[in-house]
Amino acid sequence: MDAAADNLITLTTDFGHDSSYAAQMKGVILSRNPAARILDLTHGIPPQDVRTGAIHLADTCFRFPPRTIHVAVVDPGVGTQRRLVFAQIGTQRFLAPDNGLLTLAARMSPRQRVVALSNRTYFLPAVSPTFHGRDILAPVAAHLSLGLNPQRLGEPVERLVTLPIPEPLRGTHGIAGVVLAIDSFGNVISNITAADLDDLAIEGGRLEVRCREAVVQGIQETYGSAVGAVTALVGSNGRLELAVVQGNAAARFGIRRDDPFLVSGPAGKSV
Amino acid sequence: MDAAADNLITLTTDFGHDSSYAAQMKGVILSRNPAARILDLTHGIPPQDVRTGAIHLADTCFRFPPRTIHVAVVDPGVGTQRRLVFAQIGTQRFLAPDNGLLTLAARMSPRQRVVALSNRTYFLPAVSPTFHGRDILAPVAAHLSLGLNPQRLGEPVERLVTLPIPEPLRGTHGIAGVVLAIDSFGNVISNITAADLDDLAIEGGRLEVRCREAVVQGIQETYGSAVGAVTALVGSNGRLELAVVQGNAAARFGIRRDDPFLVSGPAGKSV
Amino acid sequence: MDAAADNLITLTTDFGHDSSYAAQMKGVILSRNPAARILDLTHGIPPQDVRTGAIHLADTCFRFPPRTIHVAVVDPGVGTQRRLVFAQIGTQRFLAPDNGLLTLAARMSPRQRVVALSNRTYFLPAVSPTFHGRDILAPVAAHLSLGLNPQRLGEPVERLVTLPIPEPLRGTHGIAGVVLAIDSFGNVISNITAADLDDLAIEGGRLEVRCREAVVQGIQETYGSAVGAVTALVGSNGRLELAVVQGNAAARFGIRRDDPFLVSGPAGKSV
Repeated sequence: MDAAADNLITLTTDFGHDSSYAAQMKGVILSRNPAARILDLTHGIPPQDVRTGAIHLADTCFRFPPRTIHVAVVDPGVGTQRRLVFAQIGTQRFLAPDNGLLTLAARMSPRQRVVALSNRTYFLPAVSPTFHGRDILAPVAAHLSLGLNPQRLGEPVERLVTLPIPEPLRGTHGIAGVVLAIDSFGNVISNITAADLDDLAIEGGRLEVRCREAVVQGIQETYGSAVGAVTALVGSNGRLELAVVQGNAAARFGIRRDDPFLVSGPAGKSV
Repeated sequence: MDAAADNLITLTTDFGHDSSYAAQMKGVILSRNPAARILDLTHGIPPQDVRTGAIHLADTCFRFPPRTIHVAVVDPGVGTQRRLVFAQIGTQRFLAPDNGLLTLAARMSPRQRVVALSNRTYFLPAVSPTFHGRDILAPVAAHLSLGLNPQRLGEPVERLVTLPIPEPLRGTHGIAGVVLAIDSFGNVISNITAADLDDLAIEGGRLEVRCREAVVQGIQETYGSAVGAVTALVGSNGRLELAVVQGNAAARFGIRRDDPFLVSGPAGKSV
Repeated sequence: MDAAADNLITLTTDFGHDSSYAAQMKGVILSRNPAARILDLTHGIPPQDVRTGAIHLADTCFRFPPRTIHVAVVDPGVGTQRRLVFAQIGTQRFLAPDNGLLTLAARMSPRQRVVALSNRTYFLPAVSPTFHGRDILAPVAAHLSLGLNPQRLGEPVERLVTLPIPEPLRGTHGIAGVVLAIDSFGNVISNITAADLDDLAIEGGRLEVRCREAVVQGIQETYGSAVGAVTALVGSNGRLELAVVQGNAAARFGIRRDDPFLVSGPAGKSV
C-alpha cells in the first residue's frame, strides 16, 4: 500500500486542455519511473493565476493518500530568480515554484519541511529556460517516487513565499468578505468559511447574504429544487457560496472575483 | 484479470474541465484503495443534463471489461430526497443518483440488480449536502473495488427511475424522430437507429433525411471526401446522423437538440 | 520495467473534451488488455487538423519510455481508401492513419519500420466505417501491448505519407518562416528552430523578429518579468516563438497560423 502511494503523482497546471505540455511532463516522469501513476488534478487554472491554483491544491491535496506527490506548475516567473521547492506539508508532498501556490495548503498543517531545488543531478540534462515543469519538476518527482530522500534535492528553506489571499473581516454586525473564485457551474465562492459563520451569535437561517445585486435571506443546507432560485449555502469545501438552482449565479448577477461578499444580521438588527 | 477489472473505475460528470471536483473524488477513492485505476469517461456533460449523461454512459460502458465500476454524477437533485443507487446491469456495475442517468444503459441488458445506498458505513464520515459524488459515491466505489458485496450497501430496489427519452415514431411512409444530441464535431445525432431503418421496406440509398433546412438524399456508409457536403449516415454508436464533411452540421443549419428529424421515402412515393 | 513500458499507450485525437469517444477507445483496449496503462497525449487537436496533430506527437512522443504505443486519430479520410499503419520510429511505436500525422515524428529518427494494417484478426468483429480509432486502432494497440509481433498486422510499407509542412527559407540576410501553431497561452510558434538561428552569422541579441505588427529587437533567454512586454525566444520544444509576458501574443497582434514570421539582422545591415 505504501509503495502504491509513493508512486502517485498529481499534476496541477495552467496549460489548458489543448496542448501537449502536460503529456510531455508525463513522458519525462514515466521514462524515469515506468511504474509511476499520474493523475491530473486540473490543467484548467487560468493562465498565471497563482491564487486559483492555490485554492484547487488546498481543496484537493489532503484527500489523497499519504506521500502522494503533487506537482504544480502555475509559474509566471519561469526562468527568473524565483526558486523551485520541494515541500512536505502534513501527509502530502509538493513540487512547485515558490510563488505562493502552496499558501492555502500550507495553512492546513503546521508540519512542514521545505527544500530549495538546487541539485541538478535530478534535472533533465538540458533545462529549457521556459519549461521548468517538464525539465526540473517532472524528473525530480520521478526520483522522489522511486524513494529519493528529499534532503538530496538541495538546501533547507525556512519558510514558503506566501500569497496575500484576503481574509474576511469579522465584525459584530456581520462579516465582510470577497469572492474568492467562480466555479464551473457559475457558483460564487467566497472567502467566508463555515467556521466564520459559527462565530456569529445568530443562526444561519436569519442571516442575509449580499453580493452585487444578489440578496439572499437565510443560509440553506443544499441547493434546493426551485429552479432559478438564488441560494446561499456552505459549499462542499467549507466556503460560503451563492448559487442559482440549475443556473449560473455569476453570469446572472455579473459577479466577478474579488467582488465584495457580505453577511449580516436581519435589517435593523445587530448580529 | 478479474482482479484488474475489479479495480477499474470510470467517472462521468458535469463538472467541466477547469475544476478540481473530479480530482477530489479520485483522491477519496485512492485513499481507500490505492490500487484503484480510475479513468475519465467524460466530465463534459452539460451542467445538470441527465439525458446527455445517459447517452454517453450507454454508448461507452459495455465496451469496458466485466465488473468495471462506472460512477456517474449528473445530479441536479443533490441533497434532496432522490436516492443514490448501486446497479448491476449485465456485465457492468454503476453508482449514480437514481434520476434516469442509467435509463439507456438499462435498456441494453435485462439482467439487473439495484440497491439503494443507505448504509453509511461506507460513506465519508462527514457528508456535504452538495457533493454526494465525493462523499458517498467515491468511497462506496472504492469499497466495491476492494471486493465488498453490494448487498451490504442497502436495501434492494425494484426498478430504476426512467428518463422520458423520446422514441421515434415508425410509420409506413417513414420515421419521425428527434435530435438526441450534437457531438463535438457538430454532427447531428438522432434517436433513429440502424434497426429502425432496417424495418423500412426501402433501401437506405433511396431514403430522404430532413432536419430543419438540411435535406439529404440517400444514407451513406461513411462521411465521404467531398468537403462541405451534407451526409446522412449511421454513426459509430448505431444512430442515424447528419454530418457536414470536415464541417459542422449543427452550426450550419442552426440545428438544436430535440429538433424534428425525419426519414421518408422518395417524394411522392410511399415507403 | 520493459513490461511496464509495453503496457503504456497514449491517445492523441481531435475528439475534444466533451464526448465519450476517447473513453470508448479506452474500454476496447482494457477489455483486451486489462493491464494496459492509457494516457491522454491530448484530445484537443482542432477537428481534422492533421498538421497540429503531427506537431504535438513529435514534441511529445520521444519523451516517453521505449516501446510506448502512441495511437493517433486525426482522420478526415476515415472510411475512404487511406490506409492505417503501424510504425516503429526510433524507440517509439505508433498506430495512425497514413495521412501525414507522423511526418514530424518520422523526421526525428531514420530507424523506421512501417506495416499497413490489413489483418482483420485483430480488429473488432464489427468495424464502423466512421470510427476506425475505436474498432481497429484500439484493439490492435491492445494486442501489441500484449506482445504481438507487428509483422502479424499486415504487409510492410515502403514509406509513410508525408505532410507538406513548410520549411523556413534561410538567406544571407535572415530567415523567412511561417507561424506553425498558436499554443494555449497565445504564444506564436514559428517553424524556425534554434539550429536555424545558430546558422546565422549574427548573435541572437542583435536579431530582429517580425510577425504582422509585432516587431521585437533581440532574442531573449526567457519570458522575462515586464508584464505586457513582447518577447522573442526559443521555446521549450526548440522553436522560435513570440510571446507577451503574462498576455496573449496571438490575440494582441491578430496573428494566425501560416502568417509570415521573419528574422533579420539590424536594419540597414546584412546578417
